[in-house]
Amino acid sequence: MIEIERKFLVISEVFKTQSHRQIRIIQGFLNTDPERTVRVRLKGDKGTLTVKGISSNNGLSRFEWEREISKTDAEALLQLCEKGVIHKVRYEVDVGQHVFEVDEFSGSNSGLIIAEVELGHEDEAFEKPDWLGKEVTGDLRYYNSQLSKYPFKSWA
Amino acid sequence: MIEIERKFLVISEVFKTQSHRQIRIIQGFLNTDPERTVRVRLKGDKGTLTVKGISSNNGLSRFEWEREISKTDAEALLQLCEKGVIHKVRYEVDVGQHVFEVDEFSGSNSGLIIAEVELGHEDEAFEKPDWLGKEVTGDLRYYNSQLSKYPFKSWA
Repeated sequence: MIEIERKFLVISEVFKTQSHRQIRIIQGFLNTDPERTVRVRLKGDKGTLTVKGISSNNGLSRFEWEREISKTDAEALLQLCEKGVIHKVRYEVDVGQHVFEVDEFSGSNSGLIIAEVELGHEDEAFEKPDWLGKEVTGDLRYYNSQLSKYPFKSWA
Repeated sequence: MIEIERKFLVISEVFKTQSHRQIRIIQGFLNTDPERTVRVRLKGDKGTLTVKGISSNNGLSRFEWEREISKTDAEALLQLCEKGVIHKVRYEVDVGQHVFEVDEFSGSNSGLIIAEVELGHEDEAFEKPDWLGKEVTGDLRYYNSQLSKYPFKSWA
């Protein structure tokens, strides 16, 4: 129930040619407080409800609890979410032994592309593709919960 | 997914002699906002996660979505909840065709006893036992989410 991942900005769209899978994601938040984020997600036709705790001090580890829910339930719960539902397309890209999930945001977060890689432990090494930019692991502004409240396009 | 219920204060403890079942409840909130309450509950050994929307204008109907979760998951999620976890004992009391759920709160809400009856539709008649006091249906102060933040003992 602890998730370890590193997060990076993406500096070119080359990753799209390397991606074997794309899927549309719509997600909203029943709570955007980073200490107890509650996320409702529709990924294609699959619904999930996810609760996340605050990150560890280095930003790498975070408590995560997730359950599948039906598409109908996800749609009903999305109606209850705070304003600022997020729309994005997720590209999966194999890089060496890892899979990068690259999210291209649209709507009020368009212009933002973020790549995440999930690790087995905090010191695990991984190959960095050319399109990977600055690391933003642990930077609250790039939490989807915060992007929901303070979207990328509104940043100064 | 719409719940219709009426809620009353309780003016004597006679209900205890009429109750055929009592169970301990511990519950916390991942969000106390009445527009999107997220509740984690341990009722005996059974865990649930419940999302509720805002009440209808007359306070009678409320969107409710609930899933069972394991005791272990409930315990983990309770750690993430806002301050003000609620402890209470629920007494079930058969009254005519209905079952009243009577919650006797402890801790910072001790002194408060609330009875609820669930109805099939908003106009449904039901028998009122002698121990039933003032109706508080739709009064936000008596939502458990609000009692978690502003406990009964702190009221002026």
